[in-house]
Amino acid sequence: MEISKVNLEDKFKTFSEHWTPKIVGELNNQHVKIAKFKGQFIMHHHENEDELFFVIKGILNIELVDKVLEIKEGEFVIIPKGVKHKPFAKEEVEVLLFEPASTLNTGNKQNELTIKQLEKL
Amino acid sequence: MEISKVNLEDKFKTFSEHWTPKIVGELNNQHVKIAKFKGQFIMHHHENEDELFFVIKGILNIELVDKVLEIKEGEFVIIPKGVKHKPFAKEEVEVLLFEPASTLNTGNKQNELTIKQLEKL
Repeated sequence: MEISKVNLEDKFKTFSEHWTPKIVGELNNQHVKIAKFKGQFIMHHHENEDELFFVIKGILNIELVDKVLEIKEGEFVIIPKGVKHKPFAKEEVEVLLFEPASTLNTGNKQNELTIKQLEKL
Repeated sequence: MEISKVNLEDKFKTFSEHWTPKIVGELNNQHVKIAKFKGQFIMHHHENEDELFFVIKGILNIELVDKVLEIKEGEFVIIPKGVKHKPFAKEEVEVLLFEPASTLNTGNKQNELTIKQLEKL
């Protein structure tokens, strides 16, 4: 297998749509994904997966049951399995996700935002 | 459990030594670690763990059997299990690592660089 580096800026340039995680790396049955978020997502949780959100550019908000997190460039948060969360962003934010390959973007909810087949960049 | 964000810059300010990965996050039996590298590490491999190196600041080189990678800020590389690699850095580089909690920094080699008990920041 060819081993080569991944440049996140280059990958982010290849798409413009929001709330569509793309796979940019795979290791130990985990996926490294990137996504652009803008606007409101839905409140949901993941039954079996902890989820890491790392902000590459912009500001990401995550609403929890009891507070709202504001995550800026160079910051990350881990949302443990079972914990309800609702990502939202006033302006577009670029996010790197690290989570098990089994993770569905809308967790326990399935609707028009659900993406079952993720694109690989 | 309290859910709070992690600011990488703040974490990097808390230590100055090289080649000593510190745990800054745990999820799905994986660790998020940060480390400062400068100088030469040893050629080694990990029997069972794929390893991700994401450069936060500076330039990281990784020598493989057949080539040398140069990884810059905003870039990452995944070294699959079994693949021999030797990290080195001419100037200090700040690196974020994603890897299974079981990963030993020197992989199949154990010497004075080996750190069995990682500090949590």
